[in-house]
Amino acid sequence: MREELRSDLLEVGRLLVSMAEAARTAMSRATSGLLTADREACETVIARDAEINDLRNQVEERVYDTLARQSPVAVDLRLLVTGLQIAIDLERMGDLAEHVAKTALRRHPSPAVPAELRPVFIRMAEVADRIAGKINLVLTTQNLQLAAQLEGDDDAMDDLERELFRILLGKDWPYGAETAIDGALLGRFYERYADHAVNAGQQVVYLVTGESTPS
Amino acid sequence: MREELRSDLLEVGRLLVSMAEAARTAMSRATSGLLTADREACETVIARDAEINDLRNQVEERVYDTLARQSPVAVDLRLLVTGLQIAIDLERMGDLAEHVAKTALRRHPSPAVPAELRPVFIRMAEVADRIAGKINLVLTTQNLQLAAQLEGDDDAMDDLERELFRILLGKDWPYGAETAIDGALLGRFYERYADHAVNAGQQVVYLVTGESTPS
Repeated sequence: MREELRSDLLEVGRLLVSMAEAARTAMSRATSGLLTADREACETVIARDAEINDLRNQVEERVYDTLARQSPVAVDLRLLVTGLQIAIDLERMGDLAEHVAKTALRRHPSPAVPAELRPVFIRMAEVADRIAGKINLVLTTQNLQLAAQLEGDDDAMDDLERELFRILLGKDWPYGAETAIDGALLGRFYERYADHAVNAGQQVVYLVTGESTPS
Repeated sequence: MREELRSDLLEVGRLLVSMAEAARTAMSRATSGLLTADREACETVIARDAEINDLRNQVEERVYDTLARQSPVAVDLRLLVTGLQIAIDLERMGDLAEHVAKTALRRHPSPAVPAELRPVFIRMAEVADRIAGKINLVLTTQNLQLAAQLEGDDDAMDDLERELFRILLGKDWPYGAETAIDGALLGRFYERYADHAVNAGQQVVYLVTGESTPS
């Protein structure tokens, strides 16, 4: 690979690391805002989503600029376009964190999540954070064993979503429709966040190895 | 533009037209399955989602193949990568139609949507269908006036989602949490479908004109 192209690819990788960090922080902060009805944390997530969007634009510009200047072929080409697709997933993760923060704010100062649902959301947030963290680790360390765990992490999130619905739909659900709806939508935000994170992680494997993970 | 490259771009365009048609049919069929508790319609949507995914793979292969063979630059390059991004949105629209079909099936033979919500879902489905139809019309006729209406269509969907929530959260909501949750999630599927359709439509404008719509 030519030196200049390698340096362009590294820069795309650096931008993706910043995006992945920002998307991870956003969800972690949104969760904390959600579980402690912390208005400031929620507002920070919303305000800083623009930074993630801006990073995505930077990735796009850098990719197009590289494509135009270097005319890369074959694997290099796929790598660059893969960078673009990862940026789309990471941006969407930021949006989903913002949805969590907005849901929490809509109920503020009441908690959007009643006591019965706290344990499952705490675990959903842990799984989301673990997957998001792996994207960065794979990007920076090229540790593919971590990437191989992504499917299992995704299954864990799906199990948690099923558990959430068992509680929401249980005969003894003591709250009304509004709290049930918030719970279901929040569950979906975490689940979609994890889906995008797994997708990004698998594409990162391609980015660092040039090989797709079997799926 | 070289003749061969032009023919590759046209082929990508044809695949996108097929995808857009399939994504539109999927949601229209899912809506009909939802509103009439028609099991067969729902099962057809689920079975045929694989065709949309397969079309997306064909777009990807054709784009990468063209990039590799033709080494396009500047605008041509952006056009090809834009084709890839449109395919991602269209595939996701197919997934969302599948979610609607699965929600309907889960309640079958009961209707997932109670009488109070039918009018709003009928209108959501109309807006979704209108937006999806415009993607194809812009692709095939390059009529940019249609594309200019997309933002307004999206606003109409957002208004409908707000109306849906007003009903779900009204004091006199006569159903339990499960029906409220289904209603909220279904509303979200239509709203996300419209978002992806608008996004695809705006990128289609770029595809056919080489110019971005102001957003």
